[in-house]
Amino acid sequence: MSGNPMPQHNLPRSKPQQKNKSTKPVITRHVHTVIIGAGTAGQTAYHAAVKVTDNVLLINGGEWNTTCARVGCMPSKLLITAANRAYDINTSEVFGLKSTLKVDAKAVMKRVQLERDFFANSVLKTVSLFPDQHKLSGYARFINKNTVQVGEERIQAQRIVIATGGSPLIPEGWAGKLGKRLLTNESIFEIKKLPKSLAVIGSGAQGLELAQAFHRLGVRVKLFNRSEKVGSLTDPALQQHAVDVFSQELDLALGTIIMNVALTDSPKLQNRTNSKKAQVQITFKNKSGVEQQDTFDYVLCAITRQPNLGALDLPTAGIDLDQRGIPVGYNPLTGQIGRKPIFIAGDADLYRPIMHEAVFQGRLSGFNAARETGVEKSLPMSPLGVIFSEPQMAIVGLNYRQLTDSQQLFHIGELDFAHQGRARVMAVKHGKLRLYGDAKTGRLLGAEMFGPHVEHLAHAVAWMIQHDISIEQMIRNPYYHPTLEEGLRTALLRLKHAMQQTA
Amino acid sequence: MSGNPMPQHNLPRSKPQQKNKSTKPVITRHVHTVIIGAGTAGQTAYHAAVKVTDNVLLINGGEWNTTCARVGCMPSKLLITAANRAYDINTSEVFGLKSTLKVDAKAVMKRVQLERDFFANSVLKTVSLFPDQHKLSGYARFINKNTVQVGEERIQAQRIVIATGGSPLIPEGWAGKLGKRLLTNESIFEIKKLPKSLAVIGSGAQGLELAQAFHRLGVRVKLFNRSEKVGSLTDPALQQHAVDVFSQELDLALGTIIMNVALTDSPKLQNRTNSKKAQVQITFKNKSGVEQQDTFDYVLCAITRQPNLGALDLPTAGIDLDQRGIPVGYNPLTGQIGRKPIFIAGDADLYRPIMHEAVFQGRLSGFNAARETGVEKSLPMSPLGVIFSEPQMAIVGLNYRQLTDSQQLFHIGELDFAHQGRARVMAVKHGKLRLYGDAKTGRLLGAEMFGPHVEHLAHAVAWMIQHDISIEQMIRNPYYHPTLEEGLRTALLRLKHAMQQTA
Repeated sequence: MSGNPMPQHNLPRSKPQQKNKSTKPVITRHVHTVIIGAGTAGQTAYHAAVKVTDNVLLINGGEWNTTCARVGCMPSKLLITAANRAYDINTSEVFGLKSTLKVDAKAVMKRVQLERDFFANSVLKTVSLFPDQHKLSGYARFINKNTVQVGEERIQAQRIVIATGGSPLIPEGWAGKLGKRLLTNESIFEIKKLPKSLAVIGSGAQGLELAQAFHRLGVRVKLFNRSEKVGSLTDPALQQHAVDVFSQELDLALGTIIMNVALTDSPKLQNRTNSKKAQVQITFKNKSGVEQQDTFDYVLCAITRQPNLGALDLPTAGIDLDQRGIPVGYNPLTGQIGRKPIFIAGDADLYRPIMHEAVFQGRLSGFNAARETGVEKSLPMSPLGVIFSEPQMAIVGLNYRQLTDSQQLFHIGELDFAHQGRARVMAVKHGKLRLYGDAKTGRLLGAEMFGPHVEHLAHAVAWMIQHDISIEQMIRNPYYHPTLEEGLRTALLRLKHAMQQTA
Repeated sequence: MSGNPMPQHNLPRSKPQQKNKSTKPVITRHVHTVIIGAGTAGQTAYHAAVKVTDNVLLINGGEWNTTCARVGCMPSKLLITAANRAYDINTSEVFGLKSTLKVDAKAVMKRVQLERDFFANSVLKTVSLFPDQHKLSGYARFINKNTVQVGEERIQAQRIVIATGGSPLIPEGWAGKLGKRLLTNESIFEIKKLPKSLAVIGSGAQGLELAQAFHRLGVRVKLFNRSEKVGSLTDPALQQHAVDVFSQELDLALGTIIMNVALTDSPKLQNRTNSKKAQVQITFKNKSGVEQQDTFDYVLCAITRQPNLGALDLPTAGIDLDQRGIPVGYNPLTGQIGRKPIFIAGDADLYRPIMHEAVFQGRLSGFNAARETGVEKSLPMSPLGVIFSEPQMAIVGLNYRQLTDSQQLFHIGELDFAHQGRARVMAVKHGKLRLYGDAKTGRLLGAEMFGPHVEHLAHAVAWMIQHDISIEQMIRNPYYHPTLEEGLRTALLRLKHAMQQTA
């Protein structure tokens, strides 16, 4: 990707096509398993496939690296860690501590970039250990369900794994109008110093995390979203609580429609889009329908991510996408698309587009693609999603919306962190957690969480659900005192009580 | 307890003994279940017992409150939270943040005390809901296995639960020599402002936690211990690592023998022990055998805690203590002592003297005591211990020493947090975690941990052990990225590998 200073490995490029008298293009390679894309899912698919066959080719366009290390999980968590530390410094008076803070706008980004490079270089190191004959640089497109074209090379494969990842969606025209003032997760971690102001478009996981992080680092941030929701929570009680809590800290422009974006008028400057002085003016209708304007140094576009499938020419391989963008016939338990010799994994399929699912799917698709016959079904993994805002959000198992949509009868056990011992010790003033239980089976169906460090509680609950531990058994777990885990026990007891009331 | 500003409830005092012509003392009350001690274990025993019978009497000497809320878990965690925040402020430069810190020595203690009072008052509120006829203030002693004396009252009971808690052990003579300059957990949270200097005697859980907390709040602290160990870790690799890590931060005087303690010579002061200017001089032999002296504002004695059994006159009830201080015949699965009508729970029995075990034991002993016939065995709870130092320590299941003592064959899977992704994001430079596995069963036997926020990993591991989840199943859990939980997965994979190597 442009703008990214990662070292490039000296990888074999696609060979010039052999001269041939026939007009029909000649197959330049025959391989068993082709994997398209060398990000997290593609690399994991590769690791799984080479255990079965040496006849593997990993094809990658652009950098041989992962979204996670380069422009995703790692740099965002690095920024968030700095931001939360800044917030902690600014809110320490409650503990009897008097502190001052000066954010070094360059040093913050420098640490993010240095550590990001460490993680990205670790990935490069791993890839460099793959034998050269297993790697090909270039963008692939399907010729038919068993053949892909990469530059001058035409490669025939018994199986093909699509692991092309995803990219940020940018509204039409914005890139041209805003130039370098328009940022996405692909470019925001490259800025040399924290900006003075930032408009964040989209209050999903990425938008919320980064809006809060930049805000906590002293950047003036406005967070725009078309709907009136923040983050991933589907439980209306938690969603409302989250909006209330974040409203106290952040400048939220929810229920807002963006009418126009433009660079501010700077007639003296020739090359406006690249000027360091140009700013972005956003014209928007707020939720009362009133038109307003605001001006920012940068816009971070975090509306959504879309799978990188356009250049693959999927219809040639007979693959259609459903309205969610998931290939028709995709089986998450095998990775296969219908009965085709084609598998998919990672963000390319929009099915649970998060990193640990990409690993899971990559391993599954790579293994099943490389096998000589048949496919194996994986044991399903309990759904688990975390947003690293503060308070954090987490969803485990079936979420509230899925449960209500399915019209399943379920009970709720709630905990309010404002009245939880350890949270009170930590001076935490808000946050809630809701467990959803099935009275018939005595099992937890799922949970939504909004509270301090709920990433940990979310793991524990996901694991309990995965191993079919009953609510009664969970209550008998050891809970050390004083911990946040005790709050989980309180919610379990309330859930049990609610289930007994209606039994 | 003196010095504690808790409101006292107006509770019924023991009645004057009825006049009687016989010299044999008259039984003033007949109850089914007597519970001696109204701390955490006693209150839980009470809750369990009243579900079975209304004929319960809860006897309590001193404050009707809990060690946990008053002088244990809660005030220590409040102090630790402030201390870790101070540390975070002082170590924020790595993130590009420039900060200054001034610790308000009074405000820190004030918040600890205010919040401590909140927790202690919650306990009082709970106790105030127990009916008056169920409560008696005073210290009990056994007359025989079915009778206790409380002041002028002689109470006969079918069952008796001992839940008298524990107290800090103070070396002979220290109290007299040092007066108010000698602190224990019973008094240290009462000081109005942070001292300038503090000697902490004992580097177990309490000593380590408080030494580090006061140090991080700017107090000059020296941590003395007879052995060369800190905290609870029994795995030599982790114990050594912990000593190395804490040596970088704290003034550790390990392997040290204290020769003498005395107040500094202040001839002008009449009442030296109560003087605000007197200091404590400690004469000690360091681990090289060299005699040294150092002077401190206060000494915190955190050597160990001992059960409050002395005043009970246990031999009268036919109860002996073994060398560990646990009543001979005590069955942790029922709470009963031999076949006597006597049960024990909480810190009084020195069997796992931690808060959640006190709850567990209280519930068990209270329930079994109140039952008309027989006792029920509880399902055992997976052992779980946490020390809230930073890095935290945790032990789960069987510890390293228990495993080696039992000469059981086991394998080790280790994680070094210095090379763990999320820990690196957090700028964590040290910490290790070791899992102990049984190759025959494919099960985890236990774990010792020393690292960032391992309280959470410790819970998750304890629960997996409790529910007999195999190592292979644990590896297939979802692990969100980037989290500390992923480090657990790394250790599990290494453990699996180690087990396969020798299989």
